[in-house]
Amino acid sequence: MLSKNQIKFVNSLKQKKNRTEHNLFIAEGIKIVPELLLSKIKVKQIFASSDFLNITNIDKDIECIEVKLNELERLSALITPNEVLAVCEIPEYELNNVDFNDKLTLVLDNIQDPGNLGTIIRIADWFGIENIICSNETADAFNPKVVQATMGSIARIKVHYIGLAEFFENYQKSYSNKSAGRKPEGIHIYGALIDGENIYNSPLASNGFIIIGNESKGISNDIISYVTDKISIPSFSHSKSADGKAESLNAAIAASIICSEFRRGRSLNTNAY
Amino acid sequence: MLSKNQIKFVNSLKQKKNRTEHNLFIAEGIKIVPELLLSKIKVKQIFASSDFLNITNIDKDIECIEVKLNELERLSALITPNEVLAVCEIPEYELNNVDFNDKLTLVLDNIQDPGNLGTIIRIADWFGIENIICSNETADAFNPKVVQATMGSIARIKVHYIGLAEFFENYQKSYSNKSAGRKPEGIHIYGALIDGENIYNSPLASNGFIIIGNESKGISNDIISYVTDKISIPSFSHSKSADGKAESLNAAIAASIICSEFRRGRSLNTNAY
Repeated sequence: MLSKNQIKFVNSLKQKKNRTEHNLFIAEGIKIVPELLLSKIKVKQIFASSDFLNITNIDKDIECIEVKLNELERLSALITPNEVLAVCEIPEYELNNVDFNDKLTLVLDNIQDPGNLGTIIRIADWFGIENIICSNETADAFNPKVVQATMGSIARIKVHYIGLAEFFENYQKSYSNKSAGRKPEGIHIYGALIDGENIYNSPLASNGFIIIGNESKGISNDIISYVTDKISIPSFSHSKSADGKAESLNAAIAASIICSEFRRGRSLNTNAY
Repeated sequence: MLSKNQIKFVNSLKQKKNRTEHNLFIAEGIKIVPELLLSKIKVKQIFASSDFLNITNIDKDIECIEVKLNELERLSALITPNEVLAVCEIPEYELNNVDFNDKLTLVLDNIQDPGNLGTIIRIADWFGIENIICSNETADAFNPKVVQATMGSIARIKVHYIGLAEFFENYQKSYSNKSAGRKPEGIHIYGALIDGENIYNSPLASNGFIIIGNESKGISNDIISYVTDKISIPSFSHSKSADGKAESLNAAIAASIICSEFRRGRSLNTNAY
């Protein structure tokens, strides 16, 4: 039996200011919650059907509250609640200790749509990208819509929020220090831009940053100066002027094609070259 | 000034049975409606702000109704209506006259999510794929959510609905007839499957069919026997068993990566090989 306070508290976590205040977020469903239970993310409370509680291995220090479906509906952010809702701690990831020089990292400049952000986190997971650096204006990764769209990848991918100009500025400085005064020439900062080089023809490094811009405005002006390599996905649209043609790709679609291009070389049969 | 009947009629087109009965669909916004006006799709009615009606070139045989924003809200399927809503005829595309032998065609086996379907139609447009063949169980391409997600590509891409087993059966027969009894050996039917060949290593033809399966069930059993080439997108996820790993990609994301792989060869500098 749920108390009014429990219902009120869980629902309050659908708003960012309350998530920030309590450092908690919610995740739902029999796909995502079990993945969170196996991950490093700290699960605090579970509201679930007796079926779910009976078959799932849950640590003793997690508070479990058995609920009926109609009670779950009063907590859920989903149209069709699915057996379980978990309240979890928002993880804190240290940005300063990450060595970005030997890995590929996604940078999101003001991605607004929660579905796009969640899908990009899932893509990063698939392509073995551990960190995503988001501008402070990017949608909140712990918004319930984002969490659900990640399909569990939120448990594995480190999502950082920071001013991007500040981040690149500091990154360049620290790199210069480590490299005895040398500029970070070896590190590529790729930007997805309409006037970029055809990505299929471009040499792509196995490390560096890939910046994906806002859904309608692209990469912002104060970031663009940090881009070392402009890349674009060419269109194969039949351009009959009367009919118009596709003008752009969705941000998550562009991210997926770009990540695929960066990774494909690693799986190619070397005999083929 | 809108009449009650106008409001009722436009809203009725949000349901498939009414779209089918009247052979009409709705499209909204200053990005999509102008593209429809330029396309072969027949626009019947436009409900729009005076601003939109003043700056847009609209054929005289299209009925234009000037509306205020609060009136548009009573018609719209969007949370934030955007200046204009058009009522258009659902186009009829002839499947029998299409020569599929010299082109690449997407086949959707029971894609359910309207956002995924709309995004896939937009991807097809970007990659110059003219036709999409959908199983009868696939979401309706003229659902307002799909139309909006295509960002105008619904005006250019021919979306057909048919039983897929029937389609492939007839296709093989007609191909055999044309080729004096020969089996359609030259035509590839690619299927995106978990146990498929690594797509990055696979030879990909410039013509043929690419089947994308349902979001959770994949390609259905009665279609799988027609697949000549099983392909898959390998994961680069760091597989630490305790953390789990990404198990799948969203259907639209998979479609985008596959289309990119099929097309990339056409834009490569031939000197590179």
